[in-house]
Amino acid sequence: MPDYSLAELVKRDIVLANRIMSRENVIDDFGHISLRNPENPNRYFLSRSRSPEIVTLDDIMEFTLEGEPIDQRGRPMYSERPIHGCLFMARPDVNAVAHFHARSVLPFTVADEPLKPLFHMAAVIGETVPVWDSQPEFGDTNMLIDTMPMGHSLAKALGKNRTALIRGHGAIAVGENLRNLVMTSVYLKENAELVLQARSLGKPLTYLTPGEVQKTGTMLRTPIATDRAWDYYVARAGFRGM
Amino acid sequence: MPDYSLAELVKRDIVLANRIMSRENVIDDFGHISLRNPENPNRYFLSRSRSPEIVTLDDIMEFTLEGEPIDQRGRPMYSERPIHGCLFMARPDVNAVAHFHARSVLPFTVADEPLKPLFHMAAVIGETVPVWDSQPEFGDTNMLIDTMPMGHSLAKALGKNRTALIRGHGAIAVGENLRNLVMTSVYLKENAELVLQARSLGKPLTYLTPGEVQKTGTMLRTPIATDRAWDYYVARAGFRGM
Amino acid sequence: MPDYSLAELVKRDIVLANRIMSRENVIDDFGHISLRNPENPNRYFLSRSRSPEIVTLDDIMEFTLEGEPIDQRGRPMYSERPIHGCLFMARPDVNAVAHFHARSVLPFTVADEPLKPLFHMAAVIGETVPVWDSQPEFGDTNMLIDTMPMGHSLAKALGKNRTALIRGHGAIAVGENLRNLVMTSVYLKENAELVLQARSLGKPLTYLTPGEVQKTGTMLRTPIATDRAWDYYVARAGFRGM
Amino acid sequence: MPDYSLAELVKRDIVLANRIMSRENVIDDFGHISLRNPENPNRYFLSRSRSPEIVTLDDIMEFTLEGEPIDQRGRPMYSERPIHGCLFMARPDVNAVAHFHARSVLPFTVADEPLKPLFHMAAVIGETVPVWDSQPEFGDTNMLIDTMPMGHSLAKALGKNRTALIRGHGAIAVGENLRNLVMTSVYLKENAELVLQARSLGKPLTYLTPGEVQKTGTMLRTPIATDRAWDYYVARAGFRGM
Repeated sequence: MPDYSLAELVKRDIVLANRIMSRENVIDDFGHISLRNPENPNRYFLSRSRSPEIVTLDDIMEFTLEGEPIDQRGRPMYSERPIHGCLFMARPDVNAVAHFHARSVLPFTVADEPLKPLFHMAAVIGETVPVWDSQPEFGDTNMLIDTMPMGHSLAKALGKNRTALIRGHGAIAVGENLRNLVMTSVYLKENAELVLQARSLGKPLTYLTPGEVQKTGTMLRTPIATDRAWDYYVARAGFRGM
Repeated sequence: MPDYSLAELVKRDIVLANRIMSRENVIDDFGHISLRNPENPNRYFLSRSRSPEIVTLDDIMEFTLEGEPIDQRGRPMYSERPIHGCLFMARPDVNAVAHFHARSVLPFTVADEPLKPLFHMAAVIGETVPVWDSQPEFGDTNMLIDTMPMGHSLAKALGKNRTALIRGHGAIAVGENLRNLVMTSVYLKENAELVLQARSLGKPLTYLTPGEVQKTGTMLRTPIATDRAWDYYVARAGFRGM
Repeated sequence: MPDYSLAELVKRDIVLANRIMSRENVIDDFGHISLRNPENPNRYFLSRSRSPEIVTLDDIMEFTLEGEPIDQRGRPMYSERPIHGCLFMARPDVNAVAHFHARSVLPFTVADEPLKPLFHMAAVIGETVPVWDSQPEFGDTNMLIDTMPMGHSLAKALGKNRTALIRGHGAIAVGENLRNLVMTSVYLKENAELVLQARSLGKPLTYLTPGEVQKTGTMLRTPIATDRAWDYYVARAGFRGM
Repeated sequence: MPDYSLAELVKRDIVLANRIMSRENVIDDFGHISLRNPENPNRYFLSRSRSPEIVTLDDIMEFTLEGEPIDQRGRPMYSERPIHGCLFMARPDVNAVAHFHARSVLPFTVADEPLKPLFHMAAVIGETVPVWDSQPEFGDTNMLIDTMPMGHSLAKALGKNRTALIRGHGAIAVGENLRNLVMTSVYLKENAELVLQARSLGKPLTYLTPGEVQKTGTMLRTPIATDRAWDYYVARAGFRGM
């Protein structure tokens, strides 16, 4: 009999999310997506070390929040697991985490220019997008967030927000579920592209008001809106109808 | 016997227009296209709530101008139907309406930079592209145009023009028929991209004169020009020969 | 027996060139490519009025330099035929002509910024790229070059050069043969993109010297270079091995 | 029996690298990739003169470091072979060389703007990217590096670095092996795109520190990181699983 367990379905959704984030150019060769185990909040699922573009069902592994594999079977692991574990520890409301290097967000990590929602769809990224820098606390590093102290520091910088930037490196996003995580990640990238384009006009920009961000974000996180975006992403990633 | 009714043919063209607008990156996961019922000017056709990328024949529903479905059959509906109904009420000359969030037009909704035709093909967008803002009249909202008063306000801002922008949100376009609606929408996006690029040179730009806009727009709305563009869009969307 | 005439082979190459120019985003829904009849210098081949993306063998028609069809058979014709006829009249050295609206060249038609070769491959566009404007001589028009006087005026502006820009409209390119015409057209577009990007740094740019343009252009028009580019374009357009 | 020699496997990897560099838009119609013969350090492999997009196994030829073919069999050769031979002579640590015209690096060859690693993945390009100009030493040329003196001059400019730019022409990259060569080339292009985008904000940029470049570059050249990128590139180029 086929495997119809919850874990199996969860793994399938993680594979889908990996393919979607690749297709939408949010994630490239490096970057990863995790989902908290719905049956055990102290564990999460994450692919073995492999590009999201080619992640398959057998690659999805289970980890403790400390990043220990439950059943490694020789599979290599992402060294940046602390990002996921530390965010799940700090944020009980969060069930899904993504880390990526989408090019358009990078300028906002290395220039003194805030990234804020400029159009309604971007309300999902939240009013504030903090920037975390590894230098002040950790000095010259290989730029990976590969220790628990670095993970905790990043989680602290994120605070109660939905997205954060990492200087000279990339971004993280969190979500209550995999679908709004994907939507948040895509629109973080889209909003960054938009701000870069709009700024090229050299004129003051009218950002969404805090009230608009709050009301629009709440609306976009309803299932009808999130599912419409998900179905669209799924079709574009070649899995039409899933 | 197959359904060879006018309504059936009309629905097929709406599906085509949805796919084309997706393929040309005018419409993304959100956005929609309507067509006035050629047999009843007080009704219009519009897809159920679904991304244009995946709209199919069974998704096309009929509505009154007030946005009431004729035969809902449980299908979810776009909440921004007032855009379509109010524009059809205000503009008897208009038979097709599109609403979209093409990225390149967004900077012109949040910066004090007018969007005007900069090259001949863009004459189809018209000499003036007004910007509508929900704030002055409606304050902080979820940014959707989902009430009839908002729809009427937008229709008033559009006036007699062919296109209008919506602050921090997107754009609308109208047409006498589906084919020139699509062409107008595509070239609104293309012209915005062009102005952004040209402005990056930091020099004064020579826009089309009002006379050139009028003469070129009239020429481009002749069937020979509109159909050439339509055949091109159809082929690119994968429906070669339709 | 199949048609192995020269005219047949010539028509096949014109279809290929149409597809290539579409694939490389030089030509869009409007725009066209002509080739002088190698057996009769007073005639040229050009597609019926149709987007280059979908041009097929049966669409290729023959015209006199005045733009009269030899065998129309009811096929609609491009109204801008004067571009082709007038350039063939003015330039006996030219056997192929292209007209297109590649977006990246348009800023250089509406801003006071010269378009000159900035990298070696762009040497094929020539040292000077004049800009022709319809306004001084013809006033407000529908922007099409659809009369012989307009065609002659454009030919005069082109002079002995290989490429020219048309204000608020697009560009033309000429070549001794179809292959170097395509290469010239592609690199006119590529060079324009490059200048736009380089200019965004806000610093003085080092263009090729006249001597470099001359020497590099001559080298790139040798068959070994032109054919390497052609084989690449053909493969990308889906006709690998032709 | 099939050819399972080392030379055969090496040739297959060179074909893969050619396809990858095309797919990733690092190399276009012109440009080439070489690999030192692992069994004879005084020879290297390189395709016959052909666009990387369409290079096949039979195109891979062997050359002496002076650029003489071992077994030409009438195949045309790239005239810029001196780039490869001179770099292999000057750098015994280098086993793979690429030359390309990726558009995003070109602005940094013609404007007084240094190209330095702005994000962690770009650490692979090295702290310093020198610019070589053919003018001071060779005057007006056809811009090709097609003589041994030019190749030696370029090698001298490269020094101990991993990448170098060529004024008005393109770039070179070197690697200990084909996989890190490809990764270095891709991220040279990516970093240039990023700097161009970030600079458009008109604010000071925070580049990686020399310590970060050294530590991150070392980490990214470990097999686990290089192979993850390689598997990703291979899948995107259509050779999933090789």
